[in-house]
Amino acid sequence: MTYCVALWVDEGIVFASDTRTNAGVDYVTSYRKLHVFRPADDRVFVILAAGSLATTRELIDQIGRDLSDAPNSPNGESLLTVRYVFEAASYVGRISRQIQEKHGPALARTGASGGVSLIVGGQIAGREPELLMIYPQGNYIGASVETPYLQLGEAKYGKPILDRLARRSHSLPEAARLALVSLDATVRSNVTVGAPFDFALYRGGSLQLPESVRIEQDSPYYQRTRDYWQAGISEIFGRLEPFPIGV
Amino acid sequence: MTYCVALWVDEGIVFASDTRTNAGVDYVTSYRKLHVFRPADDRVFVILAAGSLATTRELIDQIGRDLSDAPNSPNGESLLTVRYVFEAASYVGRISRQIQEKHGPALARTGASGGVSLIVGGQIAGREPELLMIYPQGNYIGASVETPYLQLGEAKYGKPILDRLARRSHSLPEAARLALVSLDATVRSNVTVGAPFDFALYRGGSLQLPESVRIEQDSPYYQRTRDYWQAGISEIFGRLEPFPIGV
Repeated sequence: MTYCVALWVDEGIVFASDTRTNAGVDYVTSYRKLHVFRPADDRVFVILAAGSLATTRELIDQIGRDLSDAPNSPNGESLLTVRYVFEAASYVGRISRQIQEKHGPALARTGASGGVSLIVGGQIAGREPELLMIYPQGNYIGASVETPYLQLGEAKYGKPILDRLARRSHSLPEAARLALVSLDATVRSNVTVGAPFDFALYRGGSLQLPESVRIEQDSPYYQRTRDYWQAGISEIFGRLEPFPIGV
Repeated sequence: MTYCVALWVDEGIVFASDTRTNAGVDYVTSYRKLHVFRPADDRVFVILAAGSLATTRELIDQIGRDLSDAPNSPNGESLLTVRYVFEAASYVGRISRQIQEKHGPALARTGASGGVSLIVGGQIAGREPELLMIYPQGNYIGASVETPYLQLGEAKYGKPILDRLARRSHSLPEAARLALVSLDATVRSNVTVGAPFDFALYRGGSLQLPESVRIEQDSPYYQRTRDYWQAGISEIFGRLEPFPIGV
């Protein structure tokens, strides 16, 4: 299982994911689910992926090959040719669907699925940063001012805290902290999601590589944050008004 | 959709549920999902139900009919004849499965399902209180000291707070307060779960009817609790250590 979340704030976009991958409970490994592309000075893209590890790998490989081929392939589409982030989402969605269609019949015969859900965010010079989620079918939706976040995978455990606290006015580090709290809620309730966690903080307008941070399970920062959050929640709960009964 | 939760603490058992029922988003109504039976002085049972409203209604009707028939039906099974709460769970699970089997083929032709999941808890004189969850197939599991709660329906949004705070040492009113916080998290993230909320607080050993409390959406207590919780969570979040980056 996987949990990815991206928060779209006034300052930019924060991307975060766990790294746990499992094919059955006896083959649990750690893979990067956060991929950064900066194919030219005028554009930056971050892709988060949840679902089939094989489809994701082939997708990332093909995006890279299209970029390598671009100078010799004037009509080919790639992350260099798209003019909007939503065009990048359409392009990535099309490749994703093609890979799934190629392997679909063979996978279906063994009861497996090659589906992937993706988040694509980033910026192209002259335009605002954009944050989009691509369904396995290849179509996409976007984050909005009312709901300034997108999630992939095991999303429900980490959603209540986002619904409570996600704000466009959060700074990038605040949004990253909120993503960490949301990841921690998920990890506690589902063992198939786990640290280390990958973060990418993209500052809107910079067109630079996002700042990358990896937080390990035994990171003292993560431990302190987890402990403080747990103690704080317990304290608030203890101060709630008594339940209105006479028992 | 539905969300039900029951907490098994040293003092007894707290049962809680929302009341929202929908058959499509244009037919949303409110139904009781919490049913109390005290067929004799030596036994109390509470049943929570999630899933098909029709199966649940027929199930509750049949449990009542079996109780009415009991004096004239010496070999018939009912909530009066069971000797353990787990036997009540087996009995209720069998009726549930029989109702589903009866209507299953007709429902399947229209793409519908008659499945229900159930929580059964209570006590029979001379034994400890028990709390069990019955699957649509009729088999059951129980709450444990490590995981002193059970959930039905839209369970994921309200699970992280239970994983953080649920303790066997909570008093009945504390456990009810925790159930309310868990219900509130679910309501915020899923519009198909909604107030009013029904609570039943059973004091272990009493063999009396549980104390019933209904909390309406506009209950001042609920509003104050919701506001205090939201403000408290925001405050704790604001005091967390800054995310470790140089952005």
